Amino acid sequence: MAATSGTAVPGDRLSALRLDGLEALLRPRGIAVLGASSDISKIGGRPLRFLKESGFSGGVYPVNPKYDQVQGLRSFPSLDEVDGVVDLALIAVPQEGVMAAVESCAAKGVKVATIFSANFAEADAAGAALQKRITDFAAEHGLRILGPNCIGSSNRGTGATGTFAAAAGAARPAFNWDKVAFVSQSGAIAAHCVFAAFERGLDFDPWISTGNEGDIEFADVLAQLALDDEVKVIAAYLEGCRNGEKLREALAIAKARSKPVVLLKAGRSEVGARAAASHTASLVGSEQVFDALFRQYNVCRVETVAELIDLSYAFSLGNPPTGKRIGLLTGSGGVGIIMADAAEAAGLEVPPLSPAAQRSLKELWPPSGVGNPIDTTAQVMNDPRLLTAFLETVLEDDFDLVLVFLTYMGTLQPWADNIVSALREARAGHPDAVIALSLLAAPDILRQLEGLGMPAFVDPAIGLRTLARVAEITAGFADRREEIAAPATVAPPSGHGPITEVEAKRLLGLAGIAVVEERVVPSAADASAAATELGFPVAMKIVSPQILHKTEVGGVRLGVRTAEEAAAAFDGIVASASAAMPDATIEGVLIAPMIEDGIETILGVQNDPVFGPVVMFGLGGVFVEVLEDVTYRLAPFGPETAAEMVREIKGFPLLDGARGGEPADLLALGDALSALSVFAAEHRDSIESIDINPLLVRPRGRGAIAVDALIVRKE
Amino acid sequence: MAATSGTAVPGDRLSALRLDGLEALLRPRGIAVLGASSDISKIGGRPLRFLKESGFSGGVYPVNPKYDQVQGLRSFPSLDEVDGVVDLALIAVPQEGVMAAVESCAAKGVKVATIFSANFAEADAAGAALQKRITDFAAEHGLRILGPNCIGSSNRGTGATGTFAAAAGAARPAFNWDKVAFVSQSGAIAAHCVFAAFERGLDFDPWISTGNEGDIEFADVLAQLALDDEVKVIAAYLEGCRNGEKLREALAIAKARSKPVVLLKAGRSEVGARAAASHTASLVGSEQVFDALFRQYNVCRVETVAELIDLSYAFSLGNPPTGKRIGLLTGSGGVGIIMADAAEAAGLEVPPLSPAAQRSLKELWPPSGVGNPIDTTAQVMNDPRLLTAFLETVLEDDFDLVLVFLTYMGTLQPWADNIVSALREARAGHPDAVIALSLLAAPDILRQLEGLGMPAFVDPAIGLRTLARVAEITAGFADRREEIAAPATVAPPSGHGPITEVEAKRLLGLAGIAVVEERVVPSAADASAAATELGFPVAMKIVSPQILHKTEVGGVRLGVRTAEEAAAAFDGIVASASAAMPDATIEGVLIAPMIEDGIETILGVQNDPVFGPVVMFGLGGVFVEVLEDVTYRLAPFGPETAAEMVREIKGFPLLDGARGGEPADLLALGDALSALSVFAAEHRDSIESIDINPLLVRPRGRGAIAVDALIVRKE
Repeated sequence: MAATSGTAVPGDRLSALRLDGLEALLRPRGIAVLGASSDISKIGGRPLRFLKESGFSGGVYPVNPKYDQVQGLRSFPSLDEVDGVVDLALIAVPQEGVMAAVESCAAKGVKVATIFSANFAEADAAGAALQKRITDFAAEHGLRILGPNCIGSSNRGTGATGTFAAAAGAARPAFNWDKVAFVSQSGAIAAHCVFAAFERGLDFDPWISTGNEGDIEFADVLAQLALDDEVKVIAAYLEGCRNGEKLREALAIAKARSKPVVLLKAGRSEVGARAAASHTASLVGSEQVFDALFRQYNVCRVETVAELIDLSYAFSLGNPPTGKRIGLLTGSGGVGIIMADAAEAAGLEVPPLSPAAQRSLKELWPPSGVGNPIDTTAQVMNDPRLLTAFLETVLEDDFDLVLVFLTYMGTLQPWADNIVSALREARAGHPDAVIALSLLAAPDILRQLEGLGMPAFVDPAIGLRTLARVAEITAGFADRREEIAAPATVAPPSGHGPITEVEAKRLLGLAGIAVVEERVVPSAADASAAATELGFPVAMKIVSPQILHKTEVGGVRLGVRTAEEAAAAFDGIVASASAAMPDATIEGVLIAPMIEDGIETILGVQNDPVFGPVVMFGLGGVFVEVLEDVTYRLAPFGPETAAEMVREIKGFPLLDGARGGEPADLLALGDALSALSVFAAEHRDSIESIDINPLLVRPRGRGAIAVDALIVRKE
Repeated sequence: MAATSGTAVPGDRLSALRLDGLEALLRPRGIAVLGASSDISKIGGRPLRFLKESGFSGGVYPVNPKYDQVQGLRSFPSLDEVDGVVDLALIAVPQEGVMAAVESCAAKGVKVATIFSANFAEADAAGAALQKRITDFAAEHGLRILGPNCIGSSNRGTGATGTFAAAAGAARPAFNWDKVAFVSQSGAIAAHCVFAAFERGLDFDPWISTGNEGDIEFADVLAQLALDDEVKVIAAYLEGCRNGEKLREALAIAKARSKPVVLLKAGRSEVGARAAASHTASLVGSEQVFDALFRQYNVCRVETVAELIDLSYAFSLGNPPTGKRIGLLTGSGGVGIIMADAAEAAGLEVPPLSPAAQRSLKELWPPSGVGNPIDTTAQVMNDPRLLTAFLETVLEDDFDLVLVFLTYMGTLQPWADNIVSALREARAGHPDAVIALSLLAAPDILRQLEGLGMPAFVDPAIGLRTLARVAEITAGFADRREEIAAPATVAPPSGHGPITEVEAKRLLGLAGIAVVEERVVPSAADASAAATELGFPVAMKIVSPQILHKTEVGGVRLGVRTAEEAAAAFDGIVASASAAMPDATIEGVLIAPMIEDGIETILGVQNDPVFGPVVMFGLGGVFVEVLEDVTYRLAPFGPETAAEMVREIKGFPLLDGARGGEPADLLALGDALSALSVFAAEHRDSIESIDINPLLVRPRGRGAIAVDALIVRKE
């Protein structure tokens, strides 16, 4: 049993996670059922039936004052009369009796109470108020609550099936691989996925459904499972998150422990762009933030239940690939092509077999195809020794993983037994090789093959997609932890709303972002002088705290080329801005040299209510506005994460010298992005949004310069 | 039996398809096996075994001079001694005996001979030569050949199993839906897919593998199946195509008959951009051409065997949806969200239930969720009448299709029987409703539900993706046939290689594409006069048949604003071009007004060796060069297809008034694209490529104008 209690969370400050009681939820010494019933179709009856059959070695205590016995077990009139230790109580009484039941749990010293009962926060305001009274009471008494309105939890490994869901009583598949735990915000999805995984030979165990999350949250359970040494893979279903910091911490623990998290996040379609004032805000929606979070913490996000199961299965079974070079072994040339297509589309590499290996296979069976895909031809159906010989040659070559396609050979004898023998022989000589299979096979044949550490997929393309994700996430764990710069001691002026462009750029400059050299001048004569000093051409812009959209009031002139033009431009700008907004305070006109060798990029920050500051990056012009070609990360982060962001956008080739241009200064761009993220994280309590538009990224070695910037303080 | 012989192909000229003999392949009166064997593991023994067990009502004639009896049947020493009609001969003799076997088939009046034997064109040049001799001989004698090097064909509906593949002898699933036929260029894939489909309860029957395609090609079989009234859905596996015209015709027949073609095309990864001179060529690869072809003929292209099976299954079962409005019925709120996400991602619409229906459901079961997804809550597990009541209400509302999620209720009793009863009742009242299911269920329960015309998917998201494709393809059949303009009587000058820009634009102008008004002038003085007449600003470019890349030799000046500048630009252009390419013949300088209110687009044509002229469309600048945001269609086509192309590119919003611009003249753009396609198709024998770069699309009502054009004639 893993020692996982307490809050052993990495990080330099107090964790928001609460893990106390969670070990007791999964591995209780005794379980009481409050509202125990003899009717095994009732939520007070089903858990008892499951517990009787589950092999649970602790005490099981029905509590119901109406009976002496329930399902053949002694029933207690009240919890305080139970004559054994109760770590976990299952509360199956009607809503109006829950408060009393929780009080009795606290009195008995129960560690965690699972409330099946409904009609709480999910129903109405009265239910929400009652839920709050119950959870507040529990918190005061050191009692943890799972639910209410949940189907509970199940740990069939220990027999602690604290649930009324049929999944806890169903036949389990033969289980010969690593433990996959499952945490779900929806009980129905937990139960459905457990059954759906059975059909794949996979057992999600333990599983926990968090229901209304009155106390124990998804993130708490995730962290607990990440810290549990018996759990190798975490499958998860998430709908929403009230506390971003907790979720971040839980994911950080899983990442630090190299534990794969396969996560289905629902709600992509409902969340659109949030209504907000700044340009950046129109592009940040929670879904992008979740995506950024998951990318940052190496989470394997999936879109379907089928993928949740396939990925969990693949992570749990066999050796993880340490690279992307795949050998494709097939008896069908056609399927070889399909596999090559799918491997390439999934981001795997399909390099040719070494010439020596090619020669040796050609000698073995001249009609074979020996490049990669490697095609034994259908002769493998007549001669199973060919499979062993080919596979061993491929395993000794330079691949990170191998996929073997065996068509329907697992469904018919003697083929099925032949391939089991051939693969067993190949495995014996290569215990560490990463071998996956694609075939149709009878369940008992599949279980034998899985027992050899070879995950099997009916569809080769789905197998390849799955393996590519496994390789990608495995590689993600190998990345070293990046250094994040210490924040500069610079703070925005106190107050609310937007600050001036000049002040915004001054702050960003102090935060480590290069800003354009510029002057604010009070008169036409000063404008001529400043422009001459800065060097032509210059850009000129109105400076006024009330004027946010300068172009619209005629407050901008670009490409000013002489001292006379500069003087005229000053007068023109002030006149049109004053005409358009007579009440605006005009502080002067800003003059800056025009940078003509930069690529326009946009950097933004939006302070997400759940996750705090989120940094956006995109290219200027059509890329952001038409193509929405942007990427996000949660602040703060270092230059490596920034470099990832820059490479993620579709327009990246433009920064990398496409169209005959010079490659841009990517180092300077990355430094600017990470400096912005550190600044935003430091001032998360005072800054609502930041918009650097544009940051001009000049050719390599010449830097990246913020030309315009807007900072809006929190209201 | 469908009357499908002959070449009843729509179109205005003689078809390239050859369908004679194909009816006999699927429905022969008698079958002979040449090289018949008593060993049922041999390719001469297996077909006989299958035919004995298949219920085939015609004659079955083993031919082998070595035996009197084979597998209990009278064996004939030679084909000419067979005492019955033989429409189909299966040739299972070694390569060196095949010619003689084919000769005996011709003498006997056999209609089609399937050659299992290998070592022909797939092996070496000698094999290819022998294959050609055999197929030439057969063609002279009116005998069709399937193969060589194929696994044959199978029609278990009639018992005509002309194959040695194990699939023809395997247990078939209960079959209670429309016929799905399968044509495959790979025997191994045919056999694999047949087995894989069994696991889904689906029977691909008939199926045909075309092997080396010495005579009968994939397209011939596809056309035959499209014309066969018994076949409702065609599944297909394609690797390559030698005769694009035949494939186009076959797909046109299927489209005209509204018969879904679900096609897995392998080889996406191998085909990169083809090496070619013009700008367009660098973007056209065969894969893009296949994609264009499939889009044009409403083919349902899939990427995996799993999708091939899912789509075939969905098309064959139940009523096809006539629109995209889906009602989602679930017992789990969480799965409701997953389904809404998946429906939206797949392009379906999830409109709310009508207020009256919402009220009636709320009365029925107050805790239900009644928007859409419609959530019965898990109460449906306790009360199956809720399912019928909710489903009937949803079916009477305004949806085109309904998906019902039933979690694992099909795996456990009494739930399984309850849902069958509830769904049967709902179906009885709504025989035409489009109803699909997502659930886990035992096979017998699944078959009962499928018998109600309800396709079932384990994964709801995969079900939704599948249904969305079905709806999309079904809608594609409803599109009216578009009018394609008659070609103008204008031909490029005879000769090879590129023609001048001036001549290219003249031709395109005659073909119906607006071209910029321009003059070619011989002197600086004429340049000043012409520029003044056309109106400033003007663009000026060198005219020389040898100079293709004008900018690189200093042969272009843009934004020329005065008569003096025009004269100077003339001299400058001629001087730099002469210096860069002293041997070039300079025909003058072209002067054209600059159009400043147009959006840059690129139109291209590349003459594909298999499919003929392919038209490309994209936006100028980064869209084509960095993002490869382009789309293709095979020429010729009308303005409706052109409009589809324009809407397909990611940059479309830019043409539609994004970034505050005016919406562009999409009608003019569509007319230019279709005119270009008609011109390219008319001159497919003389033109290699066309590049209009840019075509400036001006605001609505102001037209689209070709500013530069290049036409390269065939070598």
